[in-house]
Amino acid sequence: MDYKQQSIALHKQYKGKLNICSKVPIDNKFDLSVAYSPGVAGPCLEIQAHPEQAKELLSAKSTVAVITDGTAVLGLGDIGPEAGLPVMEGKCALFKRFGNVDAFPIAINSKDTEEIIQTIKLIAPSFGGINLEDIAAPRCFEIEERLKKELDIPIFHDDQHGTAIVTLAGLINAIKVTEKSTDAKVVINGAGAAGIAIAKLLHLYGFDNMILCDSKGIISKHREDLNEAKKEALTFSNEYHMQGSVHDALKGADIFVGVSKGNLLKVEDIQSMNRNPIIMAMANPDPEITPDEAKKGGAAIVATGRSDYPNQINNVLVFPGIFKGAFESNAKEISDEMKLAAAKGLASLVQNPSADKIIPDPFDAGIAEAIAKAVKDAVK
Amino acid sequence: MDYKQQSIALHKQYKGKLNICSKVPIDNKFDLSVAYSPGVAGPCLEIQAHPEQAKELLSAKSTVAVITDGTAVLGLGDIGPEAGLPVMEGKCALFKRFGNVDAFPIAINSKDTEEIIQTIKLIAPSFGGINLEDIAAPRCFEIEERLKKELDIPIFHDDQHGTAIVTLAGLINAIKVTEKSTDAKVVINGAGAAGIAIAKLLHLYGFDNMILCDSKGIISKHREDLNEAKKEALTFSNEYHMQGSVHDALKGADIFVGVSKGNLLKVEDIQSMNRNPIIMAMANPDPEITPDEAKKGGAAIVATGRSDYPNQINNVLVFPGIFKGAFESNAKEISDEMKLAAAKGLASLVQNPSADKIIPDPFDAGIAEAIAKAVKDAVK
Repeated sequence: MDYKQQSIALHKQYKGKLNICSKVPIDNKFDLSVAYSPGVAGPCLEIQAHPEQAKELLSAKSTVAVITDGTAVLGLGDIGPEAGLPVMEGKCALFKRFGNVDAFPIAINSKDTEEIIQTIKLIAPSFGGINLEDIAAPRCFEIEERLKKELDIPIFHDDQHGTAIVTLAGLINAIKVTEKSTDAKVVINGAGAAGIAIAKLLHLYGFDNMILCDSKGIISKHREDLNEAKKEALTFSNEYHMQGSVHDALKGADIFVGVSKGNLLKVEDIQSMNRNPIIMAMANPDPEITPDEAKKGGAAIVATGRSDYPNQINNVLVFPGIFKGAFESNAKEISDEMKLAAAKGLASLVQNPSADKIIPDPFDAGIAEAIAKAVKDAVK
Repeated sequence: MDYKQQSIALHKQYKGKLNICSKVPIDNKFDLSVAYSPGVAGPCLEIQAHPEQAKELLSAKSTVAVITDGTAVLGLGDIGPEAGLPVMEGKCALFKRFGNVDAFPIAINSKDTEEIIQTIKLIAPSFGGINLEDIAAPRCFEIEERLKKELDIPIFHDDQHGTAIVTLAGLINAIKVTEKSTDAKVVINGAGAAGIAIAKLLHLYGFDNMILCDSKGIISKHREDLNEAKKEALTFSNEYHMQGSVHDALKGADIFVGVSKGNLLKVEDIQSMNRNPIIMAMANPDPEITPDEAKKGGAAIVATGRSDYPNQINNVLVFPGIFKGAFESNAKEISDEMKLAAAKGLASLVQNPSADKIIPDPFDAGIAEAIAKAVKDAVK
């Protein structure tokens, strides 16, 4: 029995993963009169008169909507809103388990950007924040940008920013261990939601020698097939207009960040890099190169997206704490400063970084609390 | 401190009322791999290949959306989606407490009928059923009708049908106690969502001598200000085209059903009715006439919407069991047969009906289970 079969069995046994309960006692008529009618008119009128009190009186305002259109689910692609829901329910379960944050899954039956934006805006009163999930690029960029402009609650596309924050946290420790710096040459392979966001956050942190590649090779001003996001990335990457394949890009590079597809690189690619290269091979389920092969090629540090290798780059390290911090500080958005603070905060949780420990384990205690604190300090 | 102040204090203490947890264990890497990535691809692909399996694999498909636009909240009127949320969170808490049914509140920021319908349709994959709540008439009728046609999950406007079912259940026992029958003359005062639905369900049950009144008096074919719902009600009420006020209508009547406003009737109105009249005075918080005054006028049985008098007509007696039964029987709608079965099932839970006990108490054991069973039998 593999993980998938075991997962189907688990889901059948429990009939899904979420359980919605009352936080308040309802054991007698008095309780009923206070939690519900007629007493509940009190909080209703209080919110009508003082909308800012909603945060104090509702669980809604500290609940995250985990929203998908089902078009880019895991590595499975466009499987539809209903088939995407096991991931969304799982995400909500992780929000609670790792951050004590309430979250509820919403699958939207539309692939139309405007319709998705409009739907989210119309149901937004029911939530304190929006976590966009598994929405295909480039649609996901516009949805996030527009919602950030048109709503005044935190909007966070985890596939972009969660991945970027954990990747940066890992790199902060990895360059410490390998005695590299933000001058290191970074090659990012994959220019979808995650790749673009990683590039932006690494740039914000100070990495200024970056090359992005997509499935057609190095992204340069000579290409005529670039979408807006890729064009924007060129403003801070590939300064010398290099052309070629990802293999060409890797020559002399210090860091490889892969959010692309499995088994893309060979031992020789790693050998062509600078001394003590750092390999973040995060394709799932098969990394761009296995840790064994990367080590054979001379990699000093290897991270993947998998839990069965060291250094798992796992978004669960970040998203519960990000929203916890945002809610606790009444933040109206997740700013770049908050993302950087989360990455630095996460990196600092590893006391003595080493080749096999550049990032905490999700089950280490206190991660969400530490990230929430870092995020809150960045809001102030 | 009154109920409203106590309710505000309770809501502040708990920061709202709902708590969303994981039903499945997430205590180690194996759990994480099965509940989430990579194992969760199993249930995703299973649902993609066999959509009917979604019910077995998701909590979403046994979760009720409690949806409002905030336009008719309690007796408070159009207070807006956010101010309506304390009621919606309360309703969800009651779903779980009384029926072990998961429910989640959605407040929609629109008063446009088409926009509300479209929004609900687009988020429908996330739910197993829709409970419409506190949406103003006549908009609520069209929203419910359209959703029933355009979605294949149970749609239930509790303000209409929940109220109607509990009212009918009470009347079934009340006519038993007073040795009346479905030939009894019924006056329904209030022709909004609840009044119309009560009239329809009583008609379905067999009451064939009914007069409906609204704020302008008796609804008859002589009126030129009737909306579609009121016109439709005339096809099975006011056979003799009576005109006048609710006070006129009451003369010689056996049963008064009030879903209107407080302190409307006087002792003399009750005295003008037939012998042993049954008074269901359900306006909140003040009934159309107090039980004391109704008794003074000769009422044999008095029911109200309040918990501090006998015979509380409380929707919580019905909605958890209705959805529990619908989910357990995979019903695609809440049919008239299911509503009638729920009313009869609820009435039958009172072993020896008496003037002070025509309806169970919400805290009696086994109510939702009994209603769910009755509903399931009606689906078969």
